[in-house]
Amino acid sequence: MAGRGQRAASTPTRGSKARLRLWLRLLGTSGRIERHLRARMRREFGTTLPRFDVMAALDREGDGLTMTELSRRLMVSNGNVTGIVDRLAEDGLIIRVPSPDDRRATFVRLTERGRAEFAAVAAAHERWVNELLGELSTENTLRLAAELDHLKSLLEDRDR
Amino acid sequence: MAGRGQRAASTPTRGSKARLRLWLRLLGTSGRIERHLRARMRREFGTTLPRFDVMAALDREGDGLTMTELSRRLMVSNGNVTGIVDRLAEDGLIIRVPSPDDRRATFVRLTERGRAEFAAVAAAHERWVNELLGELSTENTLRLAAELDHLKSLLEDRDR
Repeated sequence: MAGRGQRAASTPTRGSKARLRLWLRLLGTSGRIERHLRARMRREFGTTLPRFDVMAALDREGDGLTMTELSRRLMVSNGNVTGIVDRLAEDGLIIRVPSPDDRRATFVRLTERGRAEFAAVAAAHERWVNELLGELSTENTLRLAAELDHLKSLLEDRDR
Repeated sequence: MAGRGQRAASTPTRGSKARLRLWLRLLGTSGRIERHLRARMRREFGTTLPRFDVMAALDREGDGLTMTELSRRLMVSNGNVTGIVDRLAEDGLIIRVPSPDDRRATFVRLTERGRAEFAAVAAAHERWVNELLGELSTENTLRLAAELDHLKSLLEDRDR
């Protein structure tokens, strides 16, 4: 991952180099935290981040989600989500239920056990993030988050 | 992905919630930029980010790298790198050469064509990043990068 785009670009201005450097920092920092969380989740819960993400999405929707809606929210392909959902169902953490509005559509939702397991992993996840970023003062944390919010809104404007 | 760890944690202080939120922003922003770059790289060069990363690492080491060293720099497993290197070799973008010090060891390095192709993709990559982040002023960019540097150094201290 390190060092994408070290070569001269067609617009080697100070701003352009600074923005490339910002992107490499963003990628590097986020990758480092993600690797740490992934390893810890595997070690302590035998689970994976994509599986955790599926459970998080279902936890926020008590009535369940269709597979299409679930994939959309996770921004990954239906195929990838299907495998994860199959495993979660085998493990008794989610069930498939008919849609109340349309009997041909199927919803997936967490079981009680799935909900309890998600709560345990989510609490540990928050604790790990807090340990990882614990040296960052609350003031620094809030400022950095606000700047990333600003960047996010600029990116969303672009996508519109 | 969206919404990791929405549930109550064992330490629901203001700082803890703020740090979790920062991590979700970091992950979201970096994921959004990465998806954009991945799609554009595929569309305009028919290539992938991992392949670009392998070429970037080799571009910085003109004499080449062993597979082990290459994997270490990319922080991925040897197996994943092997497939990418095989394809790059088939495409004439890299070659395998014996180590000058140890004839049993093999180095991989970019060919002239590989070097030229990498330069073209890297220049486009920098241009895309600059377009994506172009609305961010140079001042904001430098400040955000400095804050991420600070965070990175805290994370590195932890890992020591």
